[in-house]
Amino acid sequence: MAASKAHPELADARKLTVTQLIEAVLILDNHVSKTEFRNAMARVCSPVNVITTAGPAGRGGVTATAMCSVSDEPPTLLVCINNKSTQTKLFQTNGKFCVNVLSAEHQNLAGIFAGSVTKMDDRFVSTEWIEIENKLPALKSAMVSFACEVIDIQRVASHNIMIGRVFQIHQRADGSPLLYFDRHYVQLN
Amino acid sequence: MAASKAHPELADARKLTVTQLIEAVLILDNHVSKTEFRNAMARVCSPVNVITTAGPAGRGGVTATAMCSVSDEPPTLLVCINNKSTQTKLFQTNGKFCVNVLSAEHQNLAGIFAGSVTKMDDRFVSTEWIEIENKLPALKSAMVSFACEVIDIQRVASHNIMIGRVFQIHQRADGSPLLYFDRHYVQLN
Repeated sequence: MAASKAHPELADARKLTVTQLIEAVLILDNHVSKTEFRNAMARVCSPVNVITTAGPAGRGGVTATAMCSVSDEPPTLLVCINNKSTQTKLFQTNGKFCVNVLSAEHQNLAGIFAGSVTKMDDRFVSTEWIEIENKLPALKSAMVSFACEVIDIQRVASHNIMIGRVFQIHQRADGSPLLYFDRHYVQLN
Repeated sequence: MAASKAHPELADARKLTVTQLIEAVLILDNHVSKTEFRNAMARVCSPVNVITTAGPAGRGGVTATAMCSVSDEPPTLLVCINNKSTQTKLFQTNGKFCVNVLSAEHQNLAGIFAGSVTKMDDRFVSTEWIEIENKLPALKSAMVSFACEVIDIQRVASHNIMIGRVFQIHQRADGSPLLYFDRHYVQLN
């Protein structure tokens, strides 16, 4: 009983063929837990971004590290957002978002958009924004901002992969990136 | 003629309604070129990874910065690979890949897998690898290695988004990450 509770894959072991049982044990052997995965991902040093949106569903924004370039022709990128996030609906309905890549002086802003300030409009008051079309907010002092039109949102497990076609870029010439590594904000030499 | 060659969107301008013409001009106005996008993406500081594979189609590996976490339950990540890369077929046929996150001492290895060495087997000789199941190569000295089973490959413009379920992790406790920023390899303080 204890073993089948710990490993629900083996709960009905008596009904399995020998081959199925071997496969189940191999899966257990290869199982990576949520904690192991999170600890390992903490060792990947990532740039920190604030993803904003505005439109019929309202203005919003969230801090995210899971962003990457997809294609340069046409310019396309993706962002992964937790499906439980209250923001997901905003992005879906507004159909537009802006990836604001943070610089070293934005550590406080990263915390605000990660949830230290809950009320959406209050998240925007501490710094300056440029309004792109339909009031989409681009962070004035971002390393670079990519304004995107949502071209696809794909659900994978707990998250949504949001794919955006880049239609406008704002960028500053200087600045050092804000990075996240070993669960701390860090910066370059 | 010159205008329609430079902007094929306007080639059939005489056949458009006024509304369609205004839309076409707005699209031109918002157009982000390949060069602008690449220059902007160069300002995003990224971790550097070598993505390896082995199996029926043979052993291979390529350097890639476009990698991110998708979900922690079940542990899932994604990598974007150019569809023109000769490696794409390898990943598709083998159905398994390993994301090896590089540390500061791997700058030479990043160059080798980015193409300074073209023959696939020769790319693997300069350092030590651990063979995971079906000879999938994990870099022994990687910051962290994520062995994945391909669960989906999605074509978006010039690239493929390869989604992997993580089935094994190898990781070292120390090390500083190799990063890429402003078209140079850099590291943390």
